[in-house]
Parts: sequence; C-alpha cells; structure tokens
Amino acid sequence: MENGGGKPVAAGRWHFGVNSALTKISDISIRPVLNMVMANIPEDGLRPVPLGHGDPSVFPCFRTTSVAEDAIVDAVRSAKFNCYASTVGILPARRALAEYLSRDLPYKLSPDDIFLTGGCTQAIEILLSALVRPGANILLPRPGFPFYEARAAFCGLEARHFDLVPEKGWEIDLEAVKALADENTVAMVVINPGNPCGNVFTYQHLAEVAETAKGLGIAVIADEVYDHLVFGSNPFVPMGIFGTTVPVFTVGSISKRWVVPGWRLGWIATNDPTGVFRETKVVDNITTLLNITTDPATFIQGAIPHILQNTKDDFFKKTIDTLKKTADICWDKLKEIDCVTCPHKPEGSMFVMVKLDLSQLEDINDDIDFCSKLAKEESVVILPGGAVGLKNWLRVTFAVDPSSLEEGLDRLKSFCQRHANKIK
Amino acid sequence: MENGGGKPVAAGRWHFGVNSALTKISDISIRPVLNMVMANIPEDGLRPVPLGHGDPSVFPCFRTTSVAEDAIVDAVRSAKFNCYASTVGILPARRALAEYLSRDLPYKLSPDDIFLTGGCTQAIEILLSALVRPGANILLPRPGFPFYEARAAFCGLEARHFDLVPEKGWEIDLEAVKALADENTVAMVVINPGNPCGNVFTYQHLAEVAETAKGLGIAVIADEVYDHLVFGSNPFVPMGIFGTTVPVFTVGSISKRWVVPGWRLGWIATNDPTGVFRETKVVDNITTLLNITTDPATFIQGAIPHILQNTKDDFFKKTIDTLKKTADICWDKLKEIDCVTCPHKPEGSMFVMVKLDLSQLEDINDDIDFCSKLAKEESVVILPGGAVGLKNWLRVTFAVDPSSLEEGLDRLKSFCQRHANKIK
Ligand SMILES: Cc1ncc(COP(=O)(O)O)c(C=O)c1O
Ligand SMILES: Cc1ncc(COP(=O)(O)O)c(C=O)c1O
Repeated sequence: MENGGGKPVAAGRWHFGVNSALTKISDISIRPVLNMVMANIPEDGLRPVPLGHGDPSVFPCFRTTSVAEDAIVDAVRSAKFNCYASTVGILPARRALAEYLSRDLPYKLSPDDIFLTGGCTQAIEILLSALVRPGANILLPRPGFPFYEARAAFCGLEARHFDLVPEKGWEIDLEAVKALADENTVAMVVINPGNPCGNVFTYQHLAEVAETAKGLGIAVIADEVYDHLVFGSNPFVPMGIFGTTVPVFTVGSISKRWVVPGWRLGWIATNDPTGVFRETKVVDNITTLLNITTDPATFIQGAIPHILQNTKDDFFKKTIDTLKKTADICWDKLKEIDCVTCPHKPEGSMFVMVKLDLSQLEDINDDIDFCSKLAKEESVVILPGGAVGLKNWLRVTFAVDPSSLEEGLDRLKSFCQRHANKIK
Repeated sequence: MENGGGKPVAAGRWHFGVNSALTKISDISIRPVLNMVMANIPEDGLRPVPLGHGDPSVFPCFRTTSVAEDAIVDAVRSAKFNCYASTVGILPARRALAEYLSRDLPYKLSPDDIFLTGGCTQAIEILLSALVRPGANILLPRPGFPFYEARAAFCGLEARHFDLVPEKGWEIDLEAVKALADENTVAMVVINPGNPCGNVFTYQHLAEVAETAKGLGIAVIADEVYDHLVFGSNPFVPMGIFGTTVPVFTVGSISKRWVVPGWRLGWIATNDPTGVFRETKVVDNITTLLNITTDPATFIQGAIPHILQNTKDDFFKKTIDTLKKTADICWDKLKEIDCVTCPHKPEGSMFVMVKLDLSQLEDINDDIDFCSKLAKEESVVILPGGAVGLKNWLRVTFAVDPSSLEEGLDRLKSFCQRHANKIK
C-alpha cells in the first residue's frame, strides 16, 4: 500500500494514498516514541509518574499566573479580538514583545522585528521553510529537539548534526560545526537553555558561536523557548546580544515561562541590527509564509501586552524555585543509581540527560527496552534518548511536582536494582 | 537579489536570501490585493466602507453569542486546558464536533473522523499536503478561494481549474471536471455555500458532483466554512451526505457561523462510511502532518463542546436575518448601477460576484484600476475579481452593517456615474 516512489493509485480505483515520505517523518518525533513507551503501562498498575513530557502545566505547583488568565478573559470579553489578525500579528502584541525582548539586549528591537506564531512550534515551521533553497542544509545539535529534523525533512532542508559535548557541560563542538558547513549551509540551531540537556550556555561560548557562524556566513536560529528558566550559576544570555556579529533569528513562546503550552503563542524575532535579513530579503520569505499559514488566536495576541507587562516577579520566582528544587532532587537521586551516569547537573529548562550503562543491566537491550520495561513494571515514563539523538541515554523531565518526582525516581532506582547484573 | 533558481548566496557573504518561488506564491493571495486597493484611501477622505473583506466581526450587529464567550472564559478559568493537546485535537471537542456534524448526515461520524485545526485555513494546509504525491494535480473552482492555489503551489500540487457557470447559478461545469481529470488527479474542491459567488448548491447538483468524482476515482474536498449561512430557497446540504458514493473531506470552522474568525478553530472531517480514506491510508498522512504542525489553542478546544451544544437558535437566526437583509440591499442597489451586472442573487455566504462592463466606463482599464480609483475617490473597498480568478469582475461583501452597506453602494453608484462613458 506504500507509495512514496512516484507511482500513483493506492486502494483499487482511488487516486490517493499513503505518502511514505511523510511516514518516515512521523518516525522522527518525540510523541510516537512516548506513546509507545506509555502503551506498556498496565491498566491496574501503580499510579503513573510522567517523567518524559515537556509540559508541567497539569501540576498545581506549575499553574500559570492569574495575571495571564485575567488578560485572556478581558480580551475575550472586550469582543475587540474576534477578527482576523494581520498575518504578522497585531501591532500592540508585536510592540509589547519588542519591548520585552529588548530589555535584555544592547539595542532596541522594533515591532517589525517580531512575527507572531502559533507557539515556538510554528516559528520553527515557518523559519525552516523560509530558509529553504535548492540543495540547502542546516546544522542541528545532537542531542536536540527532533521537531527540527522532522520539519527539515518535510521542507527539503538537509539536516547535518554537530555534537553537544557532555564533558564540556554540553557545549557545542564548534570545530564540528566548521567541518560540517559548506556554501549551502544556511543556518545553525542553538537551543539555550537546552532541551534535552538542561544546560545553559555562557556568554563566552555564545560569543564563540556568533564568531563561528559569522565566519561561515550562516544565520543563527536561537531557540529560547526556555528563556529565563535558569537556576544554576550561568545566567540566561539571549543570543540576540550578538546580533551585530551575526544575524540571529530568535524563536520563543509563552509556553514554558508562563507554563501555558496549550495557548499556542510564540514568535520569531529578527535580532539583526545591521539589517542583513532585510537586505537579503529572507524576511520577505517569512511574511509570505505567514500569509499562507494559520495564525495564533487574535484574542490571545490581544492579551499579550498585559501578560508581558503585568506578570509579577513572584510568579517567575516560584517557578524557578520549584525547578531548582526538583533539579536538585533529580540530581541527588540519580547519583544513587548505579547503572546511570549524569555528566552535568541541570541548570536550566526542565530536562536532564543521563547515560545508561547497559553492561550493568542483565536483561535490557537498549534505551527503548529500558523505558518500555520501566513503564510496564513501575508505571514510570521516561523518554528513550534515541528519540532526541542519543541512543542508550535517557531524557528525564524534572518539571514535576516534587513528591511525584521523588516517587518516580525511587521506582526507577528499584527497577535498576532489580535488573542489575548479578555477576557484577 | 532574487534567487529561486538554485544558485546560493544572496547579499555578499551570507548564505540565505529571498526565495522567488515563495514570492510568486504571495502574489496569489487576497490580502496583498486588498492591501494594494486600500493603500489608495486618502487619509483625510470619507469614512472608509469595507466591502472587500470576509470578516464582519467588527460590526456590532455581527457580535458573537455570549454563550461562546462564556465557554472560553470558563475553559481558561478552569486551568484544565493550559496543557498541550493531542495533535488530532482533544477527545471531548472531537466528540462534540462528530455529533454536531452528524446531525445533518444519514450516518454517524466518530470522533476519529474529526481532526482539529487552526481554522479552516490550517485544515486546507494539512489536507493539500496530505494529498501530495509526485505529479499529482487537484481540481479547483474558478472563481474560487485563492488560498487553495497558494497552498497547492507551496506543496507542489498542480492546480487545474474548472469553471463555475454564472448562467447556471454558479454550478460546477462537470463536463470540464471530467475533461481536466486524469489518473494523477487526487481531488476536487467544492466550496458551498460559495465564496466568492454567494451561491448554494442543490442536493441534485451535489449528487452529480459525487457521481462525477466517483467515476474519476478522486476525493471531494468540501469547503463548508460557510455552512448554514444560507438565506435563499436552497437549503444547506452537506457534501458528506454523499459519503457512501464518494469519500469526502469536509473542512470547516467556527469562524463564519459564530463570527469569530480570530479564534482559529477549524476541522477536517472524514465523511467516509465505506472506509476508503483509512484503507488508502491517506488518513495516516493527515495524522503525520498534524504531528509536525501547530495546534489550535487547547482551551478553545476545551470550549467547543459547550459552544456547539449551547448556542441558541436565536443567535443563528439573527445572523441569517441580517445577511438576508444585506444581501437584498446589495442586490437591489447593484441593479441600479448601469456598468455592473449581477448574474445571480446571493443565497448564502457573505459575497456576491458582479461583472464590470468596462465599455460603459470612460477611464477605467480593468478591475484593479476600478477598485483603486473607487478607494481613492470614495473610500470604498471592493475586491478586484482577478484576485479570485475572474478578471474584470468584482467581489462585493455584504456582511456589513446595513447602513454602511447602503452608504458604500451609494458611493459606488456615484463613482460609476461619474466615470460613465459620455459618448454612450
Ligand atoms: C527546544 C524546543 N523548541 C520548541 C518547542 C515548542 O514550543 P511551543 O510549545 O512554544 O510550540 C519546544 C517544546 O517543548 C522545545 O522543547
Ligand atoms: C472558502 C473559504 N475557505 C476557508 C476559509 C478560511 O477560514 P478560517 O477563518 O476558518 O481559517 C475562508 C475564509 O474566508 C473561506 O472563505
């Protein structure tokens, strides 16, 4: 029934059918892997503990601020935002975002630097399609966020991978970047704070990234969807600071900082004080693509100025405190488990990568087998590292309420003990 | 600076630039044409009257029902919908939609027949990409909704056009459909109630469409975004009624019936009681694509059951009454204008197509010239027919408050009189 190779016609006389090119893309996404793992949870088993997701909004301790809820309610009640928005986003929202993002920059963004999107997801969708040209390639981090791989495959951008180095706090292997790039390379992606590694890049490292990209003539796509979610010694440094060295597309959203991933409000910001993106007209590609795709709901756009201007520091502090606490719990409990090692303490985002030592386990074939059996025996869900590009690693989410996290990690520990290699 | 032909590098040393293939796509969309026309409105001129848009939500007489606003407010306040949704949409919303759409069908849709999207716009985005295969083509109506052309061009589906016949109440020229189709044709698009023609197809005509599509082995994409917005003698007949003859993808949204285009909630429904779409696995393409695109906001999905179940008939009736009234005003006033003819009284949607007789006008080159000068002299905005596929026609929106509509049409009349051919 498969048909990606050019021959038309599927079932009998109908002229449409499965597209195997698409089927391949669906395999490189986190959700199917998580679903496969979760399918192992027994109906009548222990209470499931989700440590595989990227969405803590279900936990009461991560409930968003009432400021944000009020802003939405007011926008709906006003009936001013039932209309279509302009495809780049409504001006008050773009203006508020330009101000918000400029707070951390040495120059001012203008509203015309901001393009509103349906979450950071759609920002990535649009941006990768905007960068396509025949034969083009893009440099992606490994481990990374496989949505980039899926969209690159979908729009015909070749994906090339550079490593993040665990021994160096998951810094980018910039020599590898230089070796991968050629004249068809259009951009490199930098995710900071990091998913899946929970690392936070230093100013110094980002300055080197900027110089490297400049030398190669490529744009930087800075995925800062976890912006400000930092709780270690490195502060959050927006890549846009280096916009005079290299033009930077920053993509972000309110999904993580406000813990409202379901609201689907994100952006592309052009951090480009020297005007390279306008001069090369790559911005025109973005506006064209925004013309032919759906928009974030207008009343959510309408709520943005209020949300950005009036959210109290208390709320942000509470989230950070919780994440700091859960990251500590995670770090401490993982250290107690023999068959996993954690090369770097998480300092940002919601995740940590841990390495499986299969030689210490008796009857586990690989990361998928590990996670499937863990789900079956302990109802704990963890993402196999292969899903984010590192086979036989695990991605553990610590954005969970502290008691569930402790319970989940305790179950992980007893699972590992039970499966420990007896000959050892 | 242009570069669609394969050569890399745009401005100097940067490896990215404009994509002229995208630039071409941007030309086939309504918005740039409308913007061009509107640019002619003088700052200090008459109060602008918009008769070019498809969004009446700004007029108080088209304000949505408080039932819908309340449903959103409750969903936000509940904090149950801050999370990511499943990519096909949350089950309660899909279940409610399946019930809602099944009311008009001879069989029952299941929630698995429903895929939630960011407006009908994203439904079309996803569907056209799901039908792509090498060499495939799709049959589109002329006049039509140019978003189909733009998306077809974007995803590499060849667009072929069949005519809607003004003398036959804008019915589809089915002989033309048969002549256009070949074994690479995957689907035909039927917009009913019609944009831009304001027509409503009879049961009989839709039955013929179904037989034709069946004979050709192609799917029907039924764009029913204006579903139930009918006020003539033909009732609204959903294409899904013929799902046993031919499998039908119905695309729709709450944008028009609830007058909330900014809420961005739409759907694809597979009207496919014989299971062709599942058998041919074209449904798998849809789920894959939904996995790699953004979703409608979760709390809007969460509000859907309430909106669908509790909206009062009063509200629908009020909208229909207003549209019937404004359609009558439009019809009567257009008849008074010599240089335009209106082949068919609008019975549905929000639009009517009128033909320009340029020979009766002195100094007007074409529809664009007509609309530009009209905007300049009378601050009235009308869409040039070329933007929807019929050069030297006009698309007039009557979804406007009655007094503005009258004023706009009066200004149109004096404009036409002023430019009338004196030699006549
Ligand atoms: C690195 C990264 N980028 C982008 C996204 C998408 O974010 P959004 O919810 O704003 O679409 C995520 C979500 O988990 C992410 O982890
Ligand atoms: C025929 C047709 N299809 C689809 C759409 C898109 O509708 P939505 O607002 O639900 O994205 C429109 C909007 O005007 C339309 O006229």
